[in-house]
Amino acid sequence: MERLVTSNLKMGIIAGGQLGKMLIQEASKWNIITYVLDKDEDCPAGKIASHFVKGSNLDFNDVYQFGKQVDILTFEIENVNIEALNKLKSEGVRILPDPDILALIQDKGLQKDFYRNNHIPTSPFRLVQSEQDILKSIDNGDFSFPFVQKLRKGGYDGKGVAVINSASDLNKLLPGPSVIEEKVEIDKEIAAIVARNNKGEIKCYPIVEMLFDPQANLVDKLICPSSITVEQSEKAKNIASEIIELLNMEGLLAVEFFIDSKGEVIVNEVAPRTHNSGHHTIESIVTSQFEQHLRAILNLPLGSTKLKLPSVMINILGEEGHHGNVLYEGLTESMAIDGVKIHLYGKKITQPYRKMGHITVLSPSLECALKKAEKVKQLIKVKSWTKN
Amino acid sequence: MERLVTSNLKMGIIAGGQLGKMLIQEASKWNIITYVLDKDEDCPAGKIASHFVKGSNLDFNDVYQFGKQVDILTFEIENVNIEALNKLKSEGVRILPDPDILALIQDKGLQKDFYRNNHIPTSPFRLVQSEQDILKSIDNGDFSFPFVQKLRKGGYDGKGVAVINSASDLNKLLPGPSVIEEKVEIDKEIAAIVARNNKGEIKCYPIVEMLFDPQANLVDKLICPSSITVEQSEKAKNIASEIIELLNMEGLLAVEFFIDSKGEVIVNEVAPRTHNSGHHTIESIVTSQFEQHLRAILNLPLGSTKLKLPSVMINILGEEGHHGNVLYEGLTESMAIDGVKIHLYGKKITQPYRKMGHITVLSPSLECALKKAEKVKQLIKVKSWTKN
Repeated sequence: MERLVTSNLKMGIIAGGQLGKMLIQEASKWNIITYVLDKDEDCPAGKIASHFVKGSNLDFNDVYQFGKQVDILTFEIENVNIEALNKLKSEGVRILPDPDILALIQDKGLQKDFYRNNHIPTSPFRLVQSEQDILKSIDNGDFSFPFVQKLRKGGYDGKGVAVINSASDLNKLLPGPSVIEEKVEIDKEIAAIVARNNKGEIKCYPIVEMLFDPQANLVDKLICPSSITVEQSEKAKNIASEIIELLNMEGLLAVEFFIDSKGEVIVNEVAPRTHNSGHHTIESIVTSQFEQHLRAILNLPLGSTKLKLPSVMINILGEEGHHGNVLYEGLTESMAIDGVKIHLYGKKITQPYRKMGHITVLSPSLECALKKAEKVKQLIKVKSWTKN
Repeated sequence: MERLVTSNLKMGIIAGGQLGKMLIQEASKWNIITYVLDKDEDCPAGKIASHFVKGSNLDFNDVYQFGKQVDILTFEIENVNIEALNKLKSEGVRILPDPDILALIQDKGLQKDFYRNNHIPTSPFRLVQSEQDILKSIDNGDFSFPFVQKLRKGGYDGKGVAVINSASDLNKLLPGPSVIEEKVEIDKEIAAIVARNNKGEIKCYPIVEMLFDPQANLVDKLICPSSITVEQSEKAKNIASEIIELLNMEGLLAVEFFIDSKGEVIVNEVAPRTHNSGHHTIESIVTSQFEQHLRAILNLPLGSTKLKLPSVMINILGEEGHHGNVLYEGLTESMAIDGVKIHLYGKKITQPYRKMGHITVLSPSLECALKKAEKVKQLIKVKSWTKN
């Protein structure tokens, strides 16, 4: 820690989206010098980073040259050129979390193998190479409807996933190496964020529960604390802690779980970075996920994960039918509601369902926070406008 | 509010110290474009402002040219060239708080007159032009020892104040127009931060109490909630609200009070800006003083001032005997204590008693937070080092 402020520690962040932006907001409290690599100079993190570097997270040379400039390198997305990270690591650049962990998690096939090999509860699966493979396996009776196909690489925000309920859905199959999972009868979806530092200290946040909009079938609100049982909560926290320990990881890991119709807690997938399901921690927990990530990668003691106030988090998403320069409606009205904390990422262009910001509603009563969040959701609309 | 994010509202902040830095940290959550004017490009706010402009807060031309670049102008110190603000105001630039309020508060004589004229409780006083005036008044029996002399203009952080307990202290008298106040028998020192917007909405934060180090006779810890009675707390909040209303002010006002030996609540002085006594609000209150300032000057509804968790705030001050490049000791050890939130302002040079950062300790029990804060105070030392 001492070094941060006496000799200007330079921290590089690969990609400059909202996660990078919020990480910089925390880093600035400790006066860390931040570098951001992104292809878009108008990216959310670009304006508040100490230094912005234009380049692609997927380009070997861009990532390599960027990494050479900094003392410690981290990332806010999984999609990073691993070869560049490996070369930087071999040349002594500190990269956290470790590129090997990123490589494992980037590939959903390796991820599933890791769970199986380590007896982490996850849905039964098979690895396949192609659509032909899948069709053959169905013919052979190796697996049956319904199932879920997930591309091993490159999936994001629900992309790269096909739910195949019956033979008539087979036209939805995606091309490429994939994981085929048994479709879980989902009762609830929850997430745990866990951090670990180089001394092996581990801290887990209170479990967050995703509530779905029954009409749109989209995550609608994230609540903390969740409505699950203490037993389920402890189980999820233990699994998350076990995974981060098995990975020997320094950093922050988000673990998404299903609770199935029998009440079993099973791992869906993990992300080795700050996560949408942890945004509420900024206001509702003593240590935000962004500060915790800094503590974990900078060899500092981990911070308290105690709840300050219950919270409901909603994403501010671009409205359907609106593309272009963003126009927000209902922000002022929302701000009049007690406990509403608004975060706008500063994206200039809206698209349907693009994450433009988020809102955390705080209240001593979760029920009250839920009502307020619903009201805010009705008030805020992200539209577009055209320059005259 | 809508305008902030659709057409890039440009907010100018005069001076780039820690208050400016923390204001920008909040402004970035709403994607406000920030401009900072400071003579030092290494100032705390310079690195995270969208735009840094080099210039002096006291120079007419610097302030005037700076103000012409922005949509709304605010300040983080009282010491601003008023003529430049008045010219900008006459040319239609939105300046908040209003320059007239700043002019009144800049002059402790006008400030005291304002209290007297509006029946705001404050210590009895007289205005004098010079040291000769003071000596003559003592001879005439117009006032007696002990008394406090405060320069009408330019005082800051205890500078510009002389405590004259007896004739032998008269060599401490300061030259220049001053306020002579009866010395109050101080039992406690408290502060209220209050905000008001253009709709006349007013919100006051819970009262903060300053605890003094009995040896150094310096403010040592700021606690919230305070140990005063509900009656005293209500009185202080009412007085703060009355002052901001009488001033017809849009913005944030910090009001410092004495509680005298009879338990009376009397105003010491005010500052029309975010304040050291409000730093704990970042973590311990639903709306931080910085967000509240933004809400107040941007015609937005004011945010909740409810307590999340009790807190103790301590300033991180430069050690005596240390001048030069800053070196921090004990930060990592402090971070291991649950609920310790560290803010480093990023000043490169330390000087004895310079405010280099602050720490807020959160705990459900104030007593527990006090013990932790004392421990942190013992751990953290701000020293200097010399480059080899």
